[in-house]
Amino acid sequence: MAKEITNRSEDYSQWYIDIVKKANLADNSAVRGCMVIKPYGFGIWENMRDQLDRMFKDTGHVNAYFPLFIPKSFLSREAEHVEGFAKECAVVTHHRLMNAPDGSGVVVDPEAKLEEELIVRPTSETIIWHTYKDWINSYRDLPLLINQWANVVRWEMRTRLFLRTAEFLWQEGHTAHATRQEAEEETLKILDVYATFAEEYMAMPVIKGIKTANERFAGAEETYCIEALMQDGKALQAGTSHFLGQNFAKAFDVKFLNENNQEEYVWATSWGVSTRLMGGLIMTHSDDQGLVLPPKLAPTQVVIVPIPKPAPEIDEVAEKIMRELKDLGISVSYDTDMRKRPGFKFAEHEMRGIPVRLGIGKRDLEKGVVEVARRDTKEKASQPLEGIAAHVQQLLTDIQQNLFDRAAAFRAEKTVKVDSFDDFKAVLDQDIPGFISAHWDGTTETELKIKELTKATIRCIPLDAEEEEGKCILTGKPSSQRVLFAKAY
Amino acid sequence: MAKEITNRSEDYSQWYIDIVKKANLADNSAVRGCMVIKPYGFGIWENMRDQLDRMFKDTGHVNAYFPLFIPKSFLSREAEHVEGFAKECAVVTHHRLMNAPDGSGVVVDPEAKLEEELIVRPTSETIIWHTYKDWINSYRDLPLLINQWANVVRWEMRTRLFLRTAEFLWQEGHTAHATRQEAEEETLKILDVYATFAEEYMAMPVIKGIKTANERFAGAEETYCIEALMQDGKALQAGTSHFLGQNFAKAFDVKFLNENNQEEYVWATSWGVSTRLMGGLIMTHSDDQGLVLPPKLAPTQVVIVPIPKPAPEIDEVAEKIMRELKDLGISVSYDTDMRKRPGFKFAEHEMRGIPVRLGIGKRDLEKGVVEVARRDTKEKASQPLEGIAAHVQQLLTDIQQNLFDRAAAFRAEKTVKVDSFDDFKAVLDQDIPGFISAHWDGTTETELKIKELTKATIRCIPLDAEEEEGKCILTGKPSSQRVLFAKAY
Ligand SMILES: [Zn+2]
Ligand SMILES: [Zn+2]
Repeated sequence: MAKEITNRSEDYSQWYIDIVKKANLADNSAVRGCMVIKPYGFGIWENMRDQLDRMFKDTGHVNAYFPLFIPKSFLSREAEHVEGFAKECAVVTHHRLMNAPDGSGVVVDPEAKLEEELIVRPTSETIIWHTYKDWINSYRDLPLLINQWANVVRWEMRTRLFLRTAEFLWQEGHTAHATRQEAEEETLKILDVYATFAEEYMAMPVIKGIKTANERFAGAEETYCIEALMQDGKALQAGTSHFLGQNFAKAFDVKFLNENNQEEYVWATSWGVSTRLMGGLIMTHSDDQGLVLPPKLAPTQVVIVPIPKPAPEIDEVAEKIMRELKDLGISVSYDTDMRKRPGFKFAEHEMRGIPVRLGIGKRDLEKGVVEVARRDTKEKASQPLEGIAAHVQQLLTDIQQNLFDRAAAFRAEKTVKVDSFDDFKAVLDQDIPGFISAHWDGTTETELKIKELTKATIRCIPLDAEEEEGKCILTGKPSSQRVLFAKAY
Repeated sequence: MAKEITNRSEDYSQWYIDIVKKANLADNSAVRGCMVIKPYGFGIWENMRDQLDRMFKDTGHVNAYFPLFIPKSFLSREAEHVEGFAKECAVVTHHRLMNAPDGSGVVVDPEAKLEEELIVRPTSETIIWHTYKDWINSYRDLPLLINQWANVVRWEMRTRLFLRTAEFLWQEGHTAHATRQEAEEETLKILDVYATFAEEYMAMPVIKGIKTANERFAGAEETYCIEALMQDGKALQAGTSHFLGQNFAKAFDVKFLNENNQEEYVWATSWGVSTRLMGGLIMTHSDDQGLVLPPKLAPTQVVIVPIPKPAPEIDEVAEKIMRELKDLGISVSYDTDMRKRPGFKFAEHEMRGIPVRLGIGKRDLEKGVVEVARRDTKEKASQPLEGIAAHVQQLLTDIQQNLFDRAAAFRAEKTVKVDSFDDFKAVLDQDIPGFISAHWDGTTETELKIKELTKATIRCIPLDAEEEEGKCILTGKPSSQRVLFAKAY
């Protein structure tokens, strides 16, 4: 199997597609730009979703569900939002099909034209704030801390499995607050949830930062983000949290009576992560043999392979180990397929990124050992049967940590400070460019010029950026702090 | 609050709407026929979904995700399916909006017309079987036991919150098998899962049966269902499981090589339950004071109310009880709102259907007791503080059982055998009609005639129906078993 994947050094894009397909994560569908998420890929997404959902609930949020469709006129209500979202979208114009008069199949019934077209939600601020108008009257109704797990559609021309698809799955939080301060705190609290999830579960180090005005969400006052670095030296925006100010409250006329009985507009946030995270997960850890998964998100954490095939004495040991691992909350499977040789199975389980493989052979059993192979480093070792479950448990923790450390070391190596535009371009011309920390004069004009010249964009102004006097790499104008540039997905 | 609900005896439909709205379960939205599921309603749905998901996984199923959109031509592939589903549906014809030339907002860009229209899935057999063609080559690829949780859209003219909405949430299982027998067994296995879930979790007794040819799913060879009886004597179809034969495999040309290296068409099932179950849950148990929830599905199983308001000695006891209940896996909240009086809170928690309420007052505390009120019977009793957690745990079990028993007794009372059409009509003319077990000659013609004359439909041919010679209540023609009639939602 492994030979079927392109090497990263040869063609990174093709390597990515190969992993997605050969590891059975997703596939293209009959509908342009829409993907099928296959059971194994969906199992990983379920683990991500369940963990995020726990974290949202632990921070006081509840789930709800709002309509798939948005009346066309809603999109025009918020002036900037319409520019950002009322473009490439799926438009429902009719509500009935009929048999074709010539018997050739079904056609749209021209009599069933909708009075107002409906847009398949590209994001739900408008329909949700229309609803919040009915829910909010007084400060007693606030805050509303609501999240929804949903599918959304943005009609993308160039799509890539998980990273950019016309339909994708995501969660979108939409909160309503009585004060600016509370809404700003919420925006940052969620940014922390995202960063914690990315680092502790995905083992993907991220930079927390603020987007420039040019990269801000359409309708937001401030957009915060987490940015990760992929193995090819390109950045991936992994999640965004928006402080919306009173923009949507004003657009949908959502006011509340404060404790002094005065009317005020409500303050808002929105925030989301999507199946795009699957792309980030793949591109952070995987290698030329296939997928590499952090143990905390792997649907199967341990696989046991009988060598060369199942036999009563091997099965007995395997079942004992499985019971012990399950008792520790570790997911494990026993590969009893009689049609495949061990070497073939090893390659398959490597392709699927299963963190730990245990090989059990009769000769090993006589010595009281099993072979333990870890997916991240591909190291193998003989390990005593006695205490094997505890050993594997510790190993899973080590693998989780190692994946994070490895990605963090890569990012550190691929993050450079530069102080001239020549150096800037030189870094971007490398095979694996990475993050560039550089001075910028703060104008959208310069930002766009740099993008035009180099394809690099400002990923964010890092939250932990220190004040530092400097000069814009392009214009030489004064700058008070460095921002983070990169080529990006 | 309670006074705001219409009595069931006065206007059952209005009572239902009142419950849905006053208990904060769902609301209408700006989009005709689409509902907003509010956080409390969604919390109940999450509990239902999570339990069903566990049951599907325990029976070997995995989740995946298929596109929201279906190419129009796919619907025409299976001859009966197109008649059933290519009618009232949402049709996407364009993929872009543009600013209106007159500056009045956004309009559909006429240049962005799709070559082939896309239908928002009303159900996913077609797109899934198109996909399965790529996934199935050999008997080794079978069975495929896949489920998806998704939103679907059927353009309904007359909608009712949860019971019939244009967009609804559901799960749809789509399995592929090498043999007819295996597919038939799967169909029945899932029917059992649905019945177990309905009875053990929703506390809603159901009849398992087979639909008549006329009520069969479009494209199925056989449709099995579970049917429940609501308090107003109308039936609710709560879930369906379809044996699809080789119809979709033939329509999408999905063949496999069997163990003898011969090509065969794949056998299929599909099955689903939806947010409609929320309507069934409400109408099975609730009363004129509000929602009544079975403890196994209640987001909050126990609420503690300080009487008349929080105080240090009350808070201390409440917190101790909460810890004990949480240790037993029971969800509990403490209502510390200072702005509401106990009586008002009681009415609110009754409206929300919280199964058990504990009232803690200072005088009770001096006696070492608390007041325990159960929602199902509205009984109250003084209970010693000592051992209160274990008492509440047992009480929740009793309430779960009582709700089922009560609903089962109601159904038994409201299920009658009749042997003449006059008696049949007389039963249906009652305020609360119920299930009617009667003989039918087996023809669609008679079935439709009865429906036309009485509005009653054949809900199912019960799986446990005994052979019995008789005469059709309408035509007098011979019949070999009774079927179950009712007016239905
Ligand atoms: Zn295709
Ligand atoms: Zn409205």
